[in-house]
Amino acid sequence: MLNVVVTDPPRADLALVDMLAGYGTATVHEAIGRRGYLGPAIRPVQAGKRVAGTALTVVCWPGDNLMLHVAVEQARPGDIVVVTSSSPSTDGYFGELIATSLAAHGVRGIVMGAGLRDTHELREMEFPAWTANVSAQGTVKETAGAVNVPVAIGGVTIRPGDAIVADDDGVCAVPRVDVANAVAASRSRAAKEEETRKQLADGILGLDLYGLRPKLTSVEYITAAEYARRAGEIPE
Amino acid sequence: MLNVVVTDPPRADLALVDMLAGYGTATVHEAIGRRGYLGPAIRPVQAGKRVAGTALTVVCWPGDNLMLHVAVEQARPGDIVVVTSSSPSTDGYFGELIATSLAAHGVRGIVMGAGLRDTHELREMEFPAWTANVSAQGTVKETAGAVNVPVAIGGVTIRPGDAIVADDDGVCAVPRVDVANAVAASRSRAAKEEETRKQLADGILGLDLYGLRPKLTSVEYITAAEYARRAGEIPE
Amino acid sequence: MLNVVVTDPPRADLALVDMLAGYGTATVHEAIGRRGYLGPAIRPVQAGKRVAGTALTVVCWPGDNLMLHVAVEQARPGDIVVVTSSSPSTDGYFGELIATSLAAHGVRGIVMGAGLRDTHELREMEFPAWTANVSAQGTVKETAGAVNVPVAIGGVTIRPGDAIVADDDGVCAVPRVDVANAVAASRSRAAKEEETRKQLADGILGLDLYGLRPKLTSVEYITAAEYARRAGEIPE
Amino acid sequence: MLNVVVTDPPRADLALVDMLAGYGTATVHEAIGRRGYLGPAIRPVQAGKRVAGTALTVVCWPGDNLMLHVAVEQARPGDIVVVTSSSPSTDGYFGELIATSLAAHGVRGIVMGAGLRDTHELREMEFPAWTANVSAQGTVKETAGAVNVPVAIGGVTIRPGDAIVADDDGVCAVPRVDVANAVAASRSRAAKEEETRKQLADGILGLDLYGLRPKLTSVEYITAAEYARRAGEIPE
Amino acid sequence: MLNVVVTDPPRADLALVDMLAGYGTATVHEAIGRRGYLGPAIRPVQAGKRVAGTALTVVCWPGDNLMLHVAVEQARPGDIVVVTSSSPSTDGYFGELIATSLAAHGVRGIVMGAGLRDTHELREMEFPAWTANVSAQGTVKETAGAVNVPVAIGGVTIRPGDAIVADDDGVCAVPRVDVANAVAASRSRAAKEEETRKQLADGILGLDLYGLRPKLTSVEYITAAEYARRAGEIPE
Amino acid sequence: MLNVVVTDPPRADLALVDMLAGYGTATVHEAIGRRGYLGPAIRPVQAGKRVAGTALTVVCWPGDNLMLHVAVEQARPGDIVVVTSSSPSTDGYFGELIATSLAAHGVRGIVMGAGLRDTHELREMEFPAWTANVSAQGTVKETAGAVNVPVAIGGVTIRPGDAIVADDDGVCAVPRVDVANAVAASRSRAAKEEETRKQLADGILGLDLYGLRPKLTSVEYITAAEYARRAGEIPE
Repeated sequence: MLNVVVTDPPRADLALVDMLAGYGTATVHEAIGRRGYLGPAIRPVQAGKRVAGTALTVVCWPGDNLMLHVAVEQARPGDIVVVTSSSPSTDGYFGELIATSLAAHGVRGIVMGAGLRDTHELREMEFPAWTANVSAQGTVKETAGAVNVPVAIGGVTIRPGDAIVADDDGVCAVPRVDVANAVAASRSRAAKEEETRKQLADGILGLDLYGLRPKLTSVEYITAAEYARRAGEIPE
Repeated sequence: MLNVVVTDPPRADLALVDMLAGYGTATVHEAIGRRGYLGPAIRPVQAGKRVAGTALTVVCWPGDNLMLHVAVEQARPGDIVVVTSSSPSTDGYFGELIATSLAAHGVRGIVMGAGLRDTHELREMEFPAWTANVSAQGTVKETAGAVNVPVAIGGVTIRPGDAIVADDDGVCAVPRVDVANAVAASRSRAAKEEETRKQLADGILGLDLYGLRPKLTSVEYITAAEYARRAGEIPE
Repeated sequence: MLNVVVTDPPRADLALVDMLAGYGTATVHEAIGRRGYLGPAIRPVQAGKRVAGTALTVVCWPGDNLMLHVAVEQARPGDIVVVTSSSPSTDGYFGELIATSLAAHGVRGIVMGAGLRDTHELREMEFPAWTANVSAQGTVKETAGAVNVPVAIGGVTIRPGDAIVADDDGVCAVPRVDVANAVAASRSRAAKEEETRKQLADGILGLDLYGLRPKLTSVEYITAAEYARRAGEIPE
Repeated sequence: MLNVVVTDPPRADLALVDMLAGYGTATVHEAIGRRGYLGPAIRPVQAGKRVAGTALTVVCWPGDNLMLHVAVEQARPGDIVVVTSSSPSTDGYFGELIATSLAAHGVRGIVMGAGLRDTHELREMEFPAWTANVSAQGTVKETAGAVNVPVAIGGVTIRPGDAIVADDDGVCAVPRVDVANAVAASRSRAAKEEETRKQLADGILGLDLYGLRPKLTSVEYITAAEYARRAGEIPE
Repeated sequence: MLNVVVTDPPRADLALVDMLAGYGTATVHEAIGRRGYLGPAIRPVQAGKRVAGTALTVVCWPGDNLMLHVAVEQARPGDIVVVTSSSPSTDGYFGELIATSLAAHGVRGIVMGAGLRDTHELREMEFPAWTANVSAQGTVKETAGAVNVPVAIGGVTIRPGDAIVADDDGVCAVPRVDVANAVAASRSRAAKEEETRKQLADGILGLDLYGLRPKLTSVEYITAAEYARRAGEIPE
Repeated sequence: MLNVVVTDPPRADLALVDMLAGYGTATVHEAIGRRGYLGPAIRPVQAGKRVAGTALTVVCWPGDNLMLHVAVEQARPGDIVVVTSSSPSTDGYFGELIATSLAAHGVRGIVMGAGLRDTHELREMEFPAWTANVSAQGTVKETAGAVNVPVAIGGVTIRPGDAIVADDDGVCAVPRVDVANAVAASRSRAAKEEETRKQLADGILGLDLYGLRPKLTSVEYITAAEYARRAGEIPE
């Protein structure tokens, strides 16, 4: 459904979304059943930032950032802008000017499925950004696309209003209806991890802690000499 | 034209080139009509550096850096070395030793279309470098190529003596004959951007500032409920 | 040879391995005849770390990190864990929890041919890591693989007990039987490089220092005017 | 929503879907507003096949094809199976055996976002297949995923029951609610193209036929001599 | 161990290797425990060929095919040449001339980890070839490498004399000491597949044939209406 | 220099260009000094075609094929259209309609640096095409670019009027001023290859035919037993 702007998508409860920010991408992704990760191609522009917000989605035509300007008008405080191009593109759809505009409207960051630029300035402004490409290549402002429709990045479909969590490990999307559960599950997982960390730091093996030895029934423990014999490595 | 070294390519005026350094890759690229960007594959080795210089171009055979040594003799203060291999290669053609040599001859940095190494040492030396690959893989010094002939990286043809601007967003080449215009256009664009930034920071929409609303005649603004209806999302 | 764990692979002498750490990936790789480099796809998670250790190799099934837990039990102080998946995968097989466990058993770092996560935490823990991908995507712990069998990453076969050297330029593997020679050759090369660096810093050309001019017999030195004439660039 | 099998997704009307098969990927994609194309990474295994069907979607874990077997039981005549793995994978999830099974249940083809094998046999069986990778690498059958939930390939979200059109140019998905419109629009577009083809074959220019000349106001028509002058190509 | 030519590597028994050719890459790979597949990047130049032979391994420097000429002298009837470059390269190391030479010495085909050319002529000559790249880019003949040492392609280490099986699905390497077992296991697997194929063609489900239902305990079978409810798809 | 159309670029002599078609990409590329190959990313749409023509160059904006229509008006019989997009793009800029138009104006084929579609129809029409991507994704006709300016694909700069040779191995560009020499050198090389082929078919080694043995002074010929000893493969 191109050329539509959805004006009032229901958004995840920002109080719950804020709680997600404490846990980070990997924990939240695990907590909701290993779902929602946008994949290793979406990398942070800065180091050490962890943010969460509600998805304001944007579909641009390749080499055209018109809809980003349309998106600013739809922004609500707490949003994170999530952008795709309608076909693969590495161009720089976004830079410090639009960042300035988004920040002025309370947007917390951007997740860019195409490319962005002004990375030095974005770091100085402390406007958090994740992107598939850094590119100075400019775009035009000619062709209409869509705002606040579902988009797909890295095999994950993101709907407007979903929660977005992003940090040094990349970006995870949590469906709006699952956010409350995600907070609870993340809290629980983080607590468990804290306990596990202590035991592992004490030298206890994961094999024992997680009870993994029964899964190794097919594994043979052999010596290096036996390995060499089987591999035929004795010179002939 | 392989196996030639052009000894006296006309170079862009260094005084003008130095002015370009103040604007950075994205601004210069925009100012000259969205041209000259070497693409998102050429990334900085360090963060936060912005340099400009005149292109000293080098064509190497794959896995062979002989011509980089030839290039040092052709270097003039203010040059930036721009290197390609005659077929795709990720090897490390360049490291701290050649950087030391280039620096001793007044070269300001390197743009590498293949690969380089010693990134830690390059950062410590503060020798600015942009590259498609970081690789410790060494090269031989056997086969002759060319110096100061046109080369192409990322779909952009760079001629010896062209201006090179490079920063965290990558690298832009400005044809020698366009450098004076590029300085003027960059100055003008930067001034305009400064003004735009202020207005956007005040919350004025880009839609209004740039007069983009007439381009949205095909766009429908609809509610989330209407979107769901059209998408057939009511369960059947 | 899947589903085996080799319990006592001979390891390179740790005293020698420690000496390698002083030289870094590029020097060691050169010193042993331009061999052993795992390629430009394996990148450091942190900047500025240089480590060496003995390879503890792990073969995982795609999306399954069971064998990493098995590997912890086989770890000896001084090891560096080297992990591959049995088919291409970008998932996050490794994060701060297993890092905590490995560190508790004296492991010095990890080289990951697939993907890892918790990069922020790994940097805070100062657990050095090199990887082909950063990904928050979690893995299961279901299917058995192998520990301490030969693995191949980036066209290099790494055997358990080989020496691993890793820094900002990536990772180099030194066959166990070659480690003593590698130390000697690296020392010699580093000394020679120190001498070369001084001469290059004084402005001496590599062309003269390395005696490269005889390799340029096929090269013509021409003027820009002559180049233009041959290239047919005079307008017709 | 992992670990669910949706048993009765509404499917597009097969009579309408069959009409789409007459038009092919490019025409249908254009007819519905340049949407739905799964991108250039999904390539045909065979040449010259054009099929359409209703999407039976499958989400597998990496290296695990258990859910493909689950999908067979959900198949209805006219379906095309659309498969993704929950993280990037190139393995061979599908080959002649599952093709035999799917064919026995009336399935018309497969669209594989990961990898498949037995390409020679698939061509001999005339079971049409499109895939991102050909790989002999086998998979396990251990971990549950989902059937008939929305999946995303190449930035396109495909819902169960959507229409799939596939040919030598790749694969296009048409939302179920848009299929009737897509047939009408494709018919109209094909008729118009037939007329256009005749005019172009007669030598009429697209510039005139499509009325494009007004879009060229910024274009200068210049001679080669003028171009050379501006490019500074006269030797100095 | 560079710059060595191993003159008499033990080779797999050619009578056994010939038996492997009857089964093809996917079956053999499965039969030996899902090992040995060189990955999806190595593609056939022709369609419909299935060959097996003994590996004659070659390591070339990038852009240099000298060692292919050295390899011809080491060739024995029944060999398949397996080539890597010592760093990533796409150049055309091999074409119809070396194919003519190899064919004259009884070599059955080539597996190229870098690139090759003259694909039209290779198909006309019926010299089977698999390659990571097709490239007309020529190479020099300057720098010595190695013949008949272990090489690694796609994460698989191939030793000289190992069996190679190649067809439309790519290439599989079988360690020399495992070839007899591989023949037996392939025969057994093929027989079992034949039986399975019949049952699947009769419409029996893989779920039942392979006894997979117990693995689906975590799976819920739900209606589309229930799915929509959980996904929050009822418009608000 | 964007937004220009050069109307009368000097073209290579078509009689000479036609002679090049007899030799093919690899031979011509070798004959002119291993230059001009557009790289392995540009692949033929059809098999078995070998064509030559004069380059009619086109620069499009991403996702916009307006300038292809402009190019038709500039076409001369014997031209081959060479297209780039001003930033990386995989979209389908070209299909059967524009092919029909180009064919009506005597154009012999297309070389596409972005993407094209209607591959089935192009093969049926016998309109030869080479491309980096096949994609059904449509483009708009909005933004002006350039015709008959230099373009760069795969590191090669192609000027309007250069000769283009294309076949199953890809595409080679020959500078206009070098075409006569290229014909002579290709003829000479082809004759020499024919002689070489006979000798190699008779079993004469390339090592002897090309006199390569002096380049192997650093090579040791050793037995497999000696190799194993040096590699430390005797079990300990």
